[in-house]
Amino acid sequence: MRILYHLPLSPYARKVRLVLAEKRLPFELRVEKTWERRPDYLAMNPAGTVPTLTEDNGLVIPHSNTICEYLDEAYPDICLVGRTLGERVEIRSVAAWFDERFAQEVSRNLLYEKVMKQASRRGAPDAARLREGYAALRTHLAYIGWLAETRKWLAGANLSLADFAAAAHLSALDFIGDIDWSIAPAAKEWYARMKSRPSFRALLADRVSGIAPPPHYADLDF
Amino acid sequence: MRILYHLPLSPYARKVRLVLAEKRLPFELRVEKTWERRPDYLAMNPAGTVPTLTEDNGLVIPHSNTICEYLDEAYPDICLVGRTLGERVEIRSVAAWFDERFAQEVSRNLLYEKVMKQASRRGAPDAARLREGYAALRTHLAYIGWLAETRKWLAGANLSLADFAAAAHLSALDFIGDIDWSIAPAAKEWYARMKSRPSFRALLADRVSGIAPPPHYADLDF
Repeated sequence: MRILYHLPLSPYARKVRLVLAEKRLPFELRVEKTWERRPDYLAMNPAGTVPTLTEDNGLVIPHSNTICEYLDEAYPDICLVGRTLGERVEIRSVAAWFDERFAQEVSRNLLYEKVMKQASRRGAPDAARLREGYAALRTHLAYIGWLAETRKWLAGANLSLADFAAAAHLSALDFIGDIDWSIAPAAKEWYARMKSRPSFRALLADRVSGIAPPPHYADLDF
Repeated sequence: MRILYHLPLSPYARKVRLVLAEKRLPFELRVEKTWERRPDYLAMNPAGTVPTLTEDNGLVIPHSNTICEYLDEAYPDICLVGRTLGERVEIRSVAAWFDERFAQEVSRNLLYEKVMKQASRRGAPDAARLREGYAALRTHLAYIGWLAETRKWLAGANLSLADFAAAAHLSALDFIGDIDWSIAPAAKEWYARMKSRPSFRALLADRVSGIAPPPHYADLDF
């Protein structure tokens, strides 16, 4: 069985879960407590991060972008990285925006400070970083809203990896109650479309010990 | 004419310069002082980072990975991302290791502290970060040596994007005199092979105002 090593609130693992589900590829989830630095896991993925995917044929694929590119090449029926050169450039650029820029300015400051630090017993959240994260989140929500109003999906006319990258980061923040959707109606409308896809169901059913998501988290009509 | 917006010591821009030269694609270099946040540049690349590539047909391609994937798809004669699914997974994983892990642990601590901070007038280097960077560099050089001793090139039997990603980071650090090659003979032997490729010539001829590279920087027999 295909196995995805993950953490429930890792945006990168969530992105891969969405892509696997969208491509209707069955897989088993295994939680990997990355802070324990398990030798067998480090042998598969020297960076020690989640996610890592293993295929039945023995192929081990670390790193979320490498996994998503692999999945689009190995299972091309449902194409998520675009067809023309121009589409592929736009999809990869927008996906990278979320996986790097949004991650550094928002997810790193909120998710890491509030969840990962506690899970790995590295102390209390840093108030300055939280303030920075919330301020950046407002800017990013406005940018998502602008993208969603000027295109059908975030990177163009078709649903793509860019939408899943963005939705993965937002869904993790939404789980910890950090998103005020009332300030970002256009981003909310796009996220409601993402949330109602069958591929999103498993994420909405996630349970994490010690954290109760807000009531709107799993509500398609939030 | 194809234009690459860059900074001479950006490892990401250096990676793209190597890939363009390896594929024998002519291009013009333009320095982009990213800290000035020029509106026309931000319109092409909202993240405001280098590199950005523009093609004659008007296509604008921000982000070094997006550029490298694009170049391998648009100009496939010389293939740098691998042919089989397994090769492509390994090449992308190793390239990502350097562009993320090495970048965060080494380049961020040394290049940013010593060069970018000064160029953008953000103060003096932080001594703790420099110490952290030098310590991590030793570990990474040992890892590169191990890869180079167990495979012909860093990600397998063929020269690939992984080699150019690693060489780009190392070449920028070598320019500022931060690499003690005597402690890493296997990494040095691999880097000497990279340096002697025609695609490397332009990097070795780089001049940066205010920084004199050490004599061994451009020496193929260092």
